Amino acid sequence: MSLDPEHDKREQPGPAAGPGRRLSRRHLLLGGAAAGIGAAGAIGVDLVAKTGSGGSAPPPAPLVSGTDTVPFFGVHQAGVDTEAQSRVTFVALNLLADVDRAALRRMMRILTDDAARLTQGEAALADSEPELGVVPARLTVTFGFGPSLVAVAGGLAPGWLKPLPAFTIDRLQPEWNDGDLLLQIAADDPMTVAHATRMLLKDLRSFATVRWVQSGFRRAAGSEKPGTTMRNLFGQVDGTVNPVAGTTDFEALVWDTASGPRWMVGGTGFVLRRISMNLDKWDGLDRSGRESTIGRTLATGAPLTGTRERDEPDFTATTALGFPVIPEFSHLRRARSEDTTQRILRRGYNYDDAPSGGGVSNSGLLFASFQADVDAQFVPIQTRLDTLDLLNEWTTPIGSAVFAIPPGCTMNGYIGDTLF
Amino acid sequence: MSLDPEHDKREQPGPAAGPGRRLSRRHLLLGGAAAGIGAAGAIGVDLVAKTGSGGSAPPPAPLVSGTDTVPFFGVHQAGVDTEAQSRVTFVALNLLADVDRAALRRMMRILTDDAARLTQGEAALADSEPELGVVPARLTVTFGFGPSLVAVAGGLAPGWLKPLPAFTIDRLQPEWNDGDLLLQIAADDPMTVAHATRMLLKDLRSFATVRWVQSGFRRAAGSEKPGTTMRNLFGQVDGTVNPVAGTTDFEALVWDTASGPRWMVGGTGFVLRRISMNLDKWDGLDRSGRESTIGRTLATGAPLTGTRERDEPDFTATTALGFPVIPEFSHLRRARSEDTTQRILRRGYNYDDAPSGGGVSNSGLLFASFQADVDAQFVPIQTRLDTLDLLNEWTTPIGSAVFAIPPGCTMNGYIGDTLF
Repeated sequence: MSLDPEHDKREQPGPAAGPGRRLSRRHLLLGGAAAGIGAAGAIGVDLVAKTGSGGSAPPPAPLVSGTDTVPFFGVHQAGVDTEAQSRVTFVALNLLADVDRAALRRMMRILTDDAARLTQGEAALADSEPELGVVPARLTVTFGFGPSLVAVAGGLAPGWLKPLPAFTIDRLQPEWNDGDLLLQIAADDPMTVAHATRMLLKDLRSFATVRWVQSGFRRAAGSEKPGTTMRNLFGQVDGTVNPVAGTTDFEALVWDTASGPRWMVGGTGFVLRRISMNLDKWDGLDRSGRESTIGRTLATGAPLTGTRERDEPDFTATTALGFPVIPEFSHLRRARSEDTTQRILRRGYNYDDAPSGGGVSNSGLLFASFQADVDAQFVPIQTRLDTLDLLNEWTTPIGSAVFAIPPGCTMNGYIGDTLF
Repeated sequence: MSLDPEHDKREQPGPAAGPGRRLSRRHLLLGGAAAGIGAAGAIGVDLVAKTGSGGSAPPPAPLVSGTDTVPFFGVHQAGVDTEAQSRVTFVALNLLADVDRAALRRMMRILTDDAARLTQGEAALADSEPELGVVPARLTVTFGFGPSLVAVAGGLAPGWLKPLPAFTIDRLQPEWNDGDLLLQIAADDPMTVAHATRMLLKDLRSFATVRWVQSGFRRAAGSEKPGTTMRNLFGQVDGTVNPVAGTTDFEALVWDTASGPRWMVGGTGFVLRRISMNLDKWDGLDRSGRESTIGRTLATGAPLTGTRERDEPDFTATTALGFPVIPEFSHLRRARSEDTTQRILRRGYNYDDAPSGGGVSNSGLLFASFQADVDAQFVPIQTRLDTLDLLNEWTTPIGSAVFAIPPGCTMNGYIGDTLF
């Protein structure tokens, strides 16, 4: 595969590409195909010449909250310590067999350049619908590498970069597992996510095929007070004990320092579990049964021994009958370790797909977590939940994937440049 | 099927149901199932008694834009002249064989009551996740009736309430067609739509099964200046010529007056077409080719003979070569009739599902339109587009459904009460 001459320019993504540059690359990429359209294309060209209504005029400026942006370049990739946006699409891809180290390097340069543009509300370089790129709405694009990609790159993989151990509760469906390359595309606007996803998948056409796509949502931006912990479709407050971005606690739990290969310093580990939630069966459980299953009240998310969401649970408190107030089998109790290094950053989303087979729901959680060391942090928690967690009665993991999230890059670099 | 004794109370939906009443009906409906849970349920009850952390505390009040509501009761159903929300789920159901006129009446009373509550930010009467019901975010629920439902009710159907004529461009897949009952559930928050959908489908368990579910999106509320015309995933401005709510033009085009059966006065006709858009093929068309296909500029949505989106197109203008500036085969030209009664209210949404089979998109438009008379307004337009519309090269209708949208109701009535 020969490298498009425009690609060299992409190594130093700068401020907004002018329309001329955009048209130039589009012409290169699409010129041949467009020539085949015949009458329509030809008449179109004629029209543009005569009416002056060509496509190079800038689209109207967006207003209101859609203009919010998150910086792309930095020590860490965005989309990890970013306050979770309301919409996400996770895409996993399989590398084509002929993609070698040099091709991977080109691939990551192209992806980095377009991701950087799109997150700042600019059209992608070969954007065929530039008007859809003007509402960044806090768009972040986060890249992750699977074991095969690291192997093709000739790098050393972190020890935890492999499929999770088999858990007894798992009913994994291969179509939701694993992958060579991960894109996490998140924004507060579903059109922004759809457009960015499409532009990046177009960039990937010569390098990889889509393995799976999983989309999820939280409450819309502005629906609730900022900082409100999300609720899942069981109605539970979900994610209360997350480490707080910017603290040393967060730094230690999330960002890789020097425990593994050097190219991962400033990166993190990512786990995605597709967890089907049986809402129909959950309906059979009354409110108090639900609360003891979780260990938290539904109304406020407070532990059953407290009154506010962030109160520390008291696992020693007992009822008059001598039972623990927070049951041994509760999700809260089982997820919590005495070892404070066994913690993770949760950044999950709900999914709600069309039901089939007479059910009234096909819903669940895209459980997503970031942690510096998947084996040391995530696996012990999941092992405890696998052994005993009453919530397992209503939830089933049906997909599982682990990716290495490399560090961020400078404006002169590209995501993954420490690996190549 | 015996009627739950609580149902009589539902005939006059009032202000918020107190927790006592909610628990009462939930107990009736779920008590048996909950009793079967065993240890978890029993311990849960014990916990509530001892800690006082039961579920009857009101959920925390939502803030910011999520609190906006659209009135439910009125001459017309909401969700037609309502400024389109950012998210929609359309659900079509098949009535169970044993559902008779009396059961339909009960069904519509229950649905009306819960829809009225949910749209005002209150939990549904048997809401098992009341905390998810507190962010109305302009939720509207709009009900539609298919031919079979009207027949079971013993009513006279409007002449247009039948499948659309077969168009040559159609490649309809039966799983996206028709239905007995339609729910259009729309809000500015995806969690709100998911929760309302689930609550209403639970109400329908004894009456109907799900036939299809189609979800779509526009830009998030607040992403763009209010009133901005939506763009579809081709990047086109889509829906410019819509009649404006509140005008006599809108009244005449959308609301049924006295042309059909009396129960439909104040109602309207609804068409939903699932239109697959081949984005991959569309990529092969250059920008000017796209503009001549549509008849509008991509940047502003202005007709090719104008400069602003809402400029009237000049179909007589010609280029120096003598070709019409707005081509005969363009979508704009073909959709427009000399007969101004041949107009509709478009209220469509984009869809973007997971791609399969090596493609990079599975996307399209949920074309949704409201019009007083489907045969007199929608069918002539679609017939012209079927005969000649260059856009057909990139779009394929794969689903089609027509429903009668009955008028609204008072607080003492229920949707469909004019039919029963």
